[in-house]
Amino acid sequence: MSSNKPSSYPQVTAERSDMALTNQMNMPMGPWKITVYDQEYFQGRWWEFTSCCKNVMEYGLENVRSLKVECGAWVGYEHTSLNGQQFVLEKGDYPCFEAYMGSNGYRVERMMSFRPIFSANHKESRMCVWDCENMMGRQWDLCDDYPSLQAMGWHNNEIGSMQVQSGAWVCYQYPGYRGYQYIMECDCHGGEYRHYREFGTHAHTPQIQSIRRIQH
Amino acid sequence: MSSNKPSSYPQVTAERSDMALTNQMNMPMGPWKITVYDQEYFQGRWWEFTSCCKNVMEYGLENVRSLKVECGAWVGYEHTSLNGQQFVLEKGDYPCFEAYMGSNGYRVERMMSFRPIFSANHKESRMCVWDCENMMGRQWDLCDDYPSLQAMGWHNNEIGSMQVQSGAWVCYQYPGYRGYQYIMECDCHGGEYRHYREFGTHAHTPQIQSIRRIQH
Repeated sequence: MSSNKPSSYPQVTAERSDMALTNQMNMPMGPWKITVYDQEYFQGRWWEFTSCCKNVMEYGLENVRSLKVECGAWVGYEHTSLNGQQFVLEKGDYPCFEAYMGSNGYRVERMMSFRPIFSANHKESRMCVWDCENMMGRQWDLCDDYPSLQAMGWHNNEIGSMQVQSGAWVCYQYPGYRGYQYIMECDCHGGEYRHYREFGTHAHTPQIQSIRRIQH
Repeated sequence: MSSNKPSSYPQVTAERSDMALTNQMNMPMGPWKITVYDQEYFQGRWWEFTSCCKNVMEYGLENVRSLKVECGAWVGYEHTSLNGQQFVLEKGDYPCFEAYMGSNGYRVERMMSFRPIFSANHKESRMCVWDCENMMGRQWDLCDDYPSLQAMGWHNNEIGSMQVQSGAWVCYQYPGYRGYQYIMECDCHGGEYRHYREFGTHAHTPQIQSIRRIQH
């Protein structure tokens, strides 16, 4: 089973809160920046990242209890090493768990790793979905945001396989951008997701009812 | 404080599961149709509605544990008489609470009333937001979907007031269409929401970080 990770990551760049005063003038302002806090409502110790973090515990954080995305689009993961449930993180303030997790029955209250989404913000995002695995069966080209696939003409509540031609997308289990999230990128797997088990390490169903582009 | 209701509703049209066999041929197929079940995964007793339901208990249902939207866009409410937390319901399958509620800290596990959204699906949806109450301060015109208002140039995580010129919109507390939902319509209040307390009966903060159109 392939996991949902790009093949390489830029070097980790982290800034500790107690070093910020001396270092902030030298910090590179890349196209991605996220600040994570070990307490809710942007309290406690904090770290700034401009690239992938595979394990927040390596920075002395037990968990991420609030965060601010200042640049770019990111994906957060429930477990270390970019495993478990995924959640898209776009520019804005996330003061508590509820702000960044999805509306799942199995309630996630941790984010142990995260990374930038490199292929977000393509001018033209395009992907293709099929109702069976291995790109078989009915086919549909997507180039927009779809809060309800069924309202746009898709015939059931499942997608068997998909291919991302350009950009980055987030697929959701339920209509209206709810439930499990799956981040799909042209830069991962060559953009191919041939079976629902390739959608993410937490995928246990082909149920997908809303899809949208990730832009920043 | 004004509540978030249109001034009039069409007559209730409900179909009971034990009457379906005889009545389904005569049922009017309007532009709105929702089927609600008293058990998860579309089990148990069910009712079909094509217009507003102010109290599911009047139909012998203690709660709605799953639902299918077959036509149109709807808004569900936590309490009877269209009060409490709101959730937009677009075409598709909602097999459990987690599928229709949002990702709020205060976890809603009931939907006691619901109604069609009449102004959804305008060809051109337009609204205007201000950073202060009573349409004061900085102004921004919206005509698209915005998973992150800050990524699109809005300067903070709050909106003070808004006016819907056409269509129906859903505003969310957090980026990426998460947290409390507020349904905003050109047909309600004359489209004017002058203070965050007019956003909905459950609104206790002007925090809004993502906004999208409701279409069907």
